[in-house]
Amino acid sequence: MSMHIALEEARRAAARQEVPVGAVVVAPDGRIVSQAGNRTEALNDASAHAELLAMREAARSLRSPRLAGCDLFVTLEPCPMCAAAAVHFRIRRVIFGAYDIKGGGIEHGPRIFQAPGCLHLPEVIGGVQETEAAALLKSFFAARR
Amino acid sequence: MSMHIALEEARRAAARQEVPVGAVVVAPDGRIVSQAGNRTEALNDASAHAELLAMREAARSLRSPRLAGCDLFVTLEPCPMCAAAAVHFRIRRVIFGAYDIKGGGIEHGPRIFQAPGCLHLPEVIGGVQETEAAALLKSFFAARR
Repeated sequence: MSMHIALEEARRAAARQEVPVGAVVVAPDGRIVSQAGNRTEALNDASAHAELLAMREAARSLRSPRLAGCDLFVTLEPCPMCAAAAVHFRIRRVIFGAYDIKGGGIEHGPRIFQAPGCLHLPEVIGGVQETEAAALLKSFFAARR
Repeated sequence: MSMHIALEEARRAAARQEVPVGAVVVAPDGRIVSQAGNRTEALNDASAHAELLAMREAARSLRSPRLAGCDLFVTLEPCPMCAAAAVHFRIRRVIFGAYDIKGGGIEHGPRIFQAPGCLHLPEVIGGVQETEAAALLKSFFAARR
C-alpha cells in the first residue's frame, strides 16, 4: 500500500515535469506520516528529492529530529545524499522500487550503508514494484529526448 | 573572510545548543549569497546541517536549483549527505575547516567525490582555520559530557 502511494507521488511529479520519484514515511504503528514527490525544479532546490522532503516533513510532523522505527518507501534506489540522510534520520528500513545503477547510493556508487563510519544501518529491501517504478522513469526520460 | 562568517555562524549555533558548524555560500562574483548554522534540533530536522541549509537558501535566493560557480565554505568537513548535496548543487569548490575523521564524507568515510558514478567533482580545500573550527567543536562536546 505504501509503495502504491509512493508511485502515485512519482506520477504527480512527472505531471509537474519533475523526475518521477515518490516517497512515503511510515510510522512504527503503520500510519503514513508523510508523502512527497520530487520537487527540485519547483522549489529551486537540488536537494528537494522525494525522500528528503518526505523525511523532513515526517520529522516536523512527529516533532522529532529523528525518525526511529520509521520506514521509508521510495520508488527509486536513493542517491548517496538521501541514503546518508536516512542514516541521520535513523530510518529503520528503506524499501525501494527500481535500482539506480548510475545514481544510486545504497547498492551502487559509494554504498553509503556499507561505508566506514556509518553510524546506523537501515534494513534494505530493493526491487519492490520495480517494473512499475522503472517504467515511469523510462517514459519520462524518453519523452524528453 | 567567508570562513570568518562561517565560524561566527558556528558560534551562534553553539549558543542555541546546536552542534557548532557554520557555512557560507559565495557567488562567482565574490558576494555572500547565504550563511547558516546547524539547526537540526530547532527545526526538528536531522538533515538541517549548516551546509545543506546554506545551499538551499542560496539556490532559493538565486532562483536556480543549482549553484554553478558558487563556493561552499564550512567550518567542518561535510558529512556524506552534505558532500553528496554539494554534487547535486554543482558547487565549484568546497573549502572546509576541521577534518572530521568519524563523520566526514570527503576525506573520510565513503569519500563521496571519489566514489564511482559521482557526476560532478568540486575542488576541495581542507584545513582552513582548522584550529579555531576544531576548538569550537571540542569545547561544545566537552561541556556536554
